[in-house]
Amino acid sequence: MNNIRIIIAGPRGNMGREACKLIHETEYFELVAAIDRKEEYTYVRDMEGLPALDAPVYTDAEKCVQEVEADVFLDLTNPETGKKHIALALQYGLRPVIGTTGFTEEEIHELREKAEAAELGAIIAPNFAIGAILMMKFAKMAAHYFDDVEIIELHHDRKLDAPSGTALKTAEMIKEVRTAKVQGHPNETEMLPGARGANVDGMHIHSVRLPGLVAHQQVIFGGDGQILTVKHDSFNRGSFMSGVKLSIEQVMKLQTLVYGLENIIE
Amino acid sequence: MNNIRIIIAGPRGNMGREACKLIHETEYFELVAAIDRKEEYTYVRDMEGLPALDAPVYTDAEKCVQEVEADVFLDLTNPETGKKHIALALQYGLRPVIGTTGFTEEEIHELREKAEAAELGAIIAPNFAIGAILMMKFAKMAAHYFDDVEIIELHHDRKLDAPSGTALKTAEMIKEVRTAKVQGHPNETEMLPGARGANVDGMHIHSVRLPGLVAHQQVIFGGDGQILTVKHDSFNRGSFMSGVKLSIEQVMKLQTLVYGLENIIE
Amino acid sequence: MNNIRIIIAGPRGNMGREACKLIHETEYFELVAAIDRKEEYTYVRDMEGLPALDAPVYTDAEKCVQEVEADVFLDLTNPETGKKHIALALQYGLRPVIGTTGFTEEEIHELREKAEAAELGAIIAPNFAIGAILMMKFAKMAAHYFDDVEIIELHHDRKLDAPSGTALKTAEMIKEVRTAKVQGHPNETEMLPGARGANVDGMHIHSVRLPGLVAHQQVIFGGDGQILTVKHDSFNRGSFMSGVKLSIEQVMKLQTLVYGLENIIE
Amino acid sequence: MNNIRIIIAGPRGNMGREACKLIHETEYFELVAAIDRKEEYTYVRDMEGLPALDAPVYTDAEKCVQEVEADVFLDLTNPETGKKHIALALQYGLRPVIGTTGFTEEEIHELREKAEAAELGAIIAPNFAIGAILMMKFAKMAAHYFDDVEIIELHHDRKLDAPSGTALKTAEMIKEVRTAKVQGHPNETEMLPGARGANVDGMHIHSVRLPGLVAHQQVIFGGDGQILTVKHDSFNRGSFMSGVKLSIEQVMKLQTLVYGLENIIE
Repeated sequence: MNNIRIIIAGPRGNMGREACKLIHETEYFELVAAIDRKEEYTYVRDMEGLPALDAPVYTDAEKCVQEVEADVFLDLTNPETGKKHIALALQYGLRPVIGTTGFTEEEIHELREKAEAAELGAIIAPNFAIGAILMMKFAKMAAHYFDDVEIIELHHDRKLDAPSGTALKTAEMIKEVRTAKVQGHPNETEMLPGARGANVDGMHIHSVRLPGLVAHQQVIFGGDGQILTVKHDSFNRGSFMSGVKLSIEQVMKLQTLVYGLENIIE
Repeated sequence: MNNIRIIIAGPRGNMGREACKLIHETEYFELVAAIDRKEEYTYVRDMEGLPALDAPVYTDAEKCVQEVEADVFLDLTNPETGKKHIALALQYGLRPVIGTTGFTEEEIHELREKAEAAELGAIIAPNFAIGAILMMKFAKMAAHYFDDVEIIELHHDRKLDAPSGTALKTAEMIKEVRTAKVQGHPNETEMLPGARGANVDGMHIHSVRLPGLVAHQQVIFGGDGQILTVKHDSFNRGSFMSGVKLSIEQVMKLQTLVYGLENIIE
Repeated sequence: MNNIRIIIAGPRGNMGREACKLIHETEYFELVAAIDRKEEYTYVRDMEGLPALDAPVYTDAEKCVQEVEADVFLDLTNPETGKKHIALALQYGLRPVIGTTGFTEEEIHELREKAEAAELGAIIAPNFAIGAILMMKFAKMAAHYFDDVEIIELHHDRKLDAPSGTALKTAEMIKEVRTAKVQGHPNETEMLPGARGANVDGMHIHSVRLPGLVAHQQVIFGGDGQILTVKHDSFNRGSFMSGVKLSIEQVMKLQTLVYGLENIIE
Repeated sequence: MNNIRIIIAGPRGNMGREACKLIHETEYFELVAAIDRKEEYTYVRDMEGLPALDAPVYTDAEKCVQEVEADVFLDLTNPETGKKHIALALQYGLRPVIGTTGFTEEEIHELREKAEAAELGAIIAPNFAIGAILMMKFAKMAAHYFDDVEIIELHHDRKLDAPSGTALKTAEMIKEVRTAKVQGHPNETEMLPGARGANVDGMHIHSVRLPGLVAHQQVIFGGDGQILTVKHDSFNRGSFMSGVKLSIEQVMKLQTLVYGLENIIE
């Protein structure tokens, strides 16, 4: 097998840093260039905390894809830049792996058509944590057999929004298959408002915030005499890297655009 | 050691049934009489599902304590009857163990004075589950060292009220020692109402209701880089019996009234 | 839809009792006969604790299937009797749902051929708890993405064997897809023998036994910075009934024999 | 209240670094000097990653305590150096807080006599994580009421020894109060060796090792119909700092030596 040659955009972000390390440590991955906003770096090895690699750094993404031969364009920047980069990559025959959110269904549809016309694989992954994606996939499968489910998500106390995006996404996926039902006793009453959590289509979501926590979620299904729980704990950014690796490997085999890693995981 | 002779009120209730079995199986306990509303039983052995004991059954509690020599009066009836029985027991020189709630602070004070005047032990226990009481005790202790805490209580979906009485009691006990504080990010927002649970003095309580669950609670403390959790699972009425046993043993050594098993547990 | 007419063998066992209740409560299920070892019962309603149903009770299984028109033969007896009943059912054109273990691969193969020849569905289910089956299925799926896994199973302290059959079955299913590997640090040492649990193909299994527990298992997958856990708690026999129900429904649609509910669950 | 003036030994270690930050951030703590093996630093601010403090750095511990006025001597080095420093501190009238292990009971006894003669507080803390210490303390308390207990400790897969030191210490503390008993069914058999874990006095300990885990322990007590669990998760070194802070505060109030934070926690 030939090496997979990778251009990375956003090498100095939290994700980017880990991704450079991953590429460096994976035998059949090769970092061939990086794209960065700042003009001060010539090579990846000039960037503090990154592996000592000779891959050149560009500020102009188009110039980069014109000058450097590569297989995969890995974007770990932000929604706006990500959208530009995916178009650019497809235009120049590279396979994009995009780690940002914010695409509309219409945009995804158009990009998929482009990818298929060019016979190129493309992956947009709002979440690279394979464990979290499996958790959601399992939750959806279990919802075929259990109508009653509650979600508890637990995060550090610097998080601003509740419930978490993952909890809402999980509820959304469950909703697609679950027989709609209002859970709990029909006459149940909250002696204190909020005790029963947020309500999504009759399901309940509870958000715990405590110092010391990182990012955790459990999906709890209840039936006669039994409880089935799927739980994911994410302790650090390293948890995203197995998903990045899988995406780079899989995008080489695709000839269409896939949105969400749940669709390349069997 | 002499046997502890016990009169039980409410032998046919869920708790009473288990208590009769407990007394029967404990070598140094002796069931000497039972008090029941119904006139149809002569002996305990006449009651379906109870051990084949010759202890007589009375409908008149006062007649019972006058005729039968006993050490402990175990009441597992209801608040109203419990109040009558504790007074009766103390009047006739028996040590009451009362498993009901609904006493005012003033009533407890008066009964304590009566018990002390008579040099008799007495125990009123709103909850006999030693595991639940230890959970609450530990939570209170931990609150000296952790200001941030959330409570998740999980029950079957036939429960009407949320949060559970135990969760509220736990929050109350934590409040006594915790430095008051509003938890979570000061700017956190609920995208869906109720996500962050009920708020008690800045602490958050979450109530999960699912078929298949019995009665469960976890108290989660968070600090820098660590989480401490105390958790209790109650699977059936049997969980109350160790508390009933301990109460009967301890009431023999007391010369005052104790309210709440947390006060006889070291 | 016509009612599904069911003959049950073993109506007075723990499982049988629950199954009779389930059939009684399910609108489109109909109990048409029961098979019991004892001669003393004429109708199901004569059996203590069972629903007041007029279905006749037979001691002779062959006579029963000859005289009573039925769709499904539900066997909740023991391996020996189960083997006789499945053959009998297929011979007389009934669809068997067999809740026992102990079939060899060869026996299953032969029975499948018979079922297919007769164009009849048949289900043999060593485990009817859907939650447990989903747990195993999810564990197998996760093992594609996580090489490191440990199993903790927790049961009441009257259980004789360790590890549990479910834990061994789970390990077996994981083994089919997991890249074989010796887990833990290559130089790890047990300061006390047994600390690291039982070893199945490099995976570790831990068996906890405590009074108060019922039947619980968690399968824990670990990867860089993340943990994925699948957990099942079974609190009582009721947990098997959703699997019995599903089996009765599905066996009507099959024209072959299925071994293990994991194969009818998507 | 006056500031507490602190000399730290080992400022560049993992623990030392966090402790310097803690002292810097605590209003009434003041870092007055540091002791380091290396000669190259004049002030704490010269050390990479430490707060910009003017506290001088000494290589000679005795010279340091002679020249600098201080209240507390905080040692976060190693057992050998720690032993020298505690003696030195007591000799020069400083209150030692020593975060190392390896003291014999005799050494502790002698040091306590010295501390009491000098009317100085002293704390030796093998473990500064308050959450872990509370877990052990609660476990010991619960063991008065539950004879059946199992310990599951879970760590990353680079850990060499199993069970962990904390698990063994917990078992030791439980043993002091628990009625000795062989747990599990008297006739239980391990189908696979090690399944039932390590055996300490009839209790069972299970060690899980997985990538992604950090340092976790649960102590599970089982009784009739109920389970009580105490659980601690440590995610990073930050978890030790609340114990360091508490020790510095408490050592000012003591006039004897305390070994183990469990003895200053109520």
